[in-house]
Amino acid sequence: MIIKLEKIEVQSRKDMEMIDITEQVERVVAESGLKNGVVMAMTAHTSSGLLVTEGIDCLERDVLAHLERLAPKDPPEGSYHYWHNRYLDYDGRLGFNAGDHLKSILGGINCFFPVEDGKIVRGSRQRVYFVEYDGPLARTVCIQVLGE
Amino acid sequence: MIIKLEKIEVQSRKDMEMIDITEQVERVVAESGLKNGVVMAMTAHTSSGLLVTEGIDCLERDVLAHLERLAPKDPPEGSYHYWHNRYLDYDGRLGFNAGDHLKSILGGINCFFPVEDGKIVRGSRQRVYFVEYDGPLARTVCIQVLGE
Amino acid sequence: MIIKLEKIEVQSRKDMEMIDITEQVERVVAESGLKNGVVMAMTAHTSSGLLVTEGIDCLERDVLAHLERLAPKDPPEGSYHYWHNRYLDYDGRLGFNAGDHLKSILGGINCFFPVEDGKIVRGSRQRVYFVEYDGPLARTVCIQVLGE
Repeated sequence: MIIKLEKIEVQSRKDMEMIDITEQVERVVAESGLKNGVVMAMTAHTSSGLLVTEGIDCLERDVLAHLERLAPKDPPEGSYHYWHNRYLDYDGRLGFNAGDHLKSILGGINCFFPVEDGKIVRGSRQRVYFVEYDGPLARTVCIQVLGE
Repeated sequence: MIIKLEKIEVQSRKDMEMIDITEQVERVVAESGLKNGVVMAMTAHTSSGLLVTEGIDCLERDVLAHLERLAPKDPPEGSYHYWHNRYLDYDGRLGFNAGDHLKSILGGINCFFPVEDGKIVRGSRQRVYFVEYDGPLARTVCIQVLGE
Repeated sequence: MIIKLEKIEVQSRKDMEMIDITEQVERVVAESGLKNGVVMAMTAHTSSGLLVTEGIDCLERDVLAHLERLAPKDPPEGSYHYWHNRYLDYDGRLGFNAGDHLKSILGGINCFFPVEDGKIVRGSRQRVYFVEYDGPLARTVCIQVLGE
């Protein structure tokens, strides 16, 4: 049985950003020697995401803009408020990113693909994205293969 | 170790449609000879989804209607717009389905269940749905078993 | 190969509630003897969820409140209605929880983490939550390890 885990670093440069990591995922599979099995990927952070969609600039912008519409950093004036927007003793700072945690939950934090004959099985338009909701930050993504 | 991957075709007949594929997933498990392990399923398309919910007509309608409310094909007049709504050189056509990609992200594209003694372990009300957001189209769903 | 499945019971005490089950997941991994592989968790119910976020009270409140904003139990007056809000023969009662099924779909029902040297690999702030949307109820969560 082949079980290999690689933790890759992803450096975001903006507050919100979609970063295509498909090639890193494919590299981990290629280097693992896995013939058949599964590759699983997961962000290790609660204000970032990992998701699969088509790889085009205009759609990247729509994904970020729409998640911001559905779970805004600041609620519309005169509407609701976030409880997380308060002083956090253990952090020594104000909680400020409730909307980004919510985006992470809505968009998801992981994905998996079958691997067949050493190749990831994915749709021709499927790309794997790390999604930064609260950057810029150095982030860790876990990529794991299991199989033989 | 047993590792088997089957790609099934799902033909959607409408623009948006929920198609119960639980029996296909169960068939793949039964035919694989897997006793204990996991079965994983994933749609191979970025304007479709795969999700688990209760199998009743009225709820199917609610899921589709609500995802359309949360990520509409056409934004409400005078509100935001989608960037993806533009001419795409490489496609030779107008990008038009931003809302359907967004539905796919919100509803998810995959699921997994444990397998025990050759049977899928799932809640009595859990059904596996392929969800078409941009049909009608012939679609591919990957179903994979891993274990022994 | 090590494959072990444990079904744990989670008792919710409220209509909506986030219940941190990280320690139960860690216990299943520790007791399984797994050194390297993956741990997968899934709720067996269609009006509950399983998700990963930071473990703080204020954020728990935000997650529940926001999912209720996105998929309310009762639609805003004069807006849409749920089809599931009707008499269900096979249940002998009124379907009433469309919004809770929708929350389950939006927030997700499962998660997985790599296991390395017998320990779950997760971000320092990542906690695993069972999320009740339609309680109080006795619920089942499946936790499975695969690897060696």
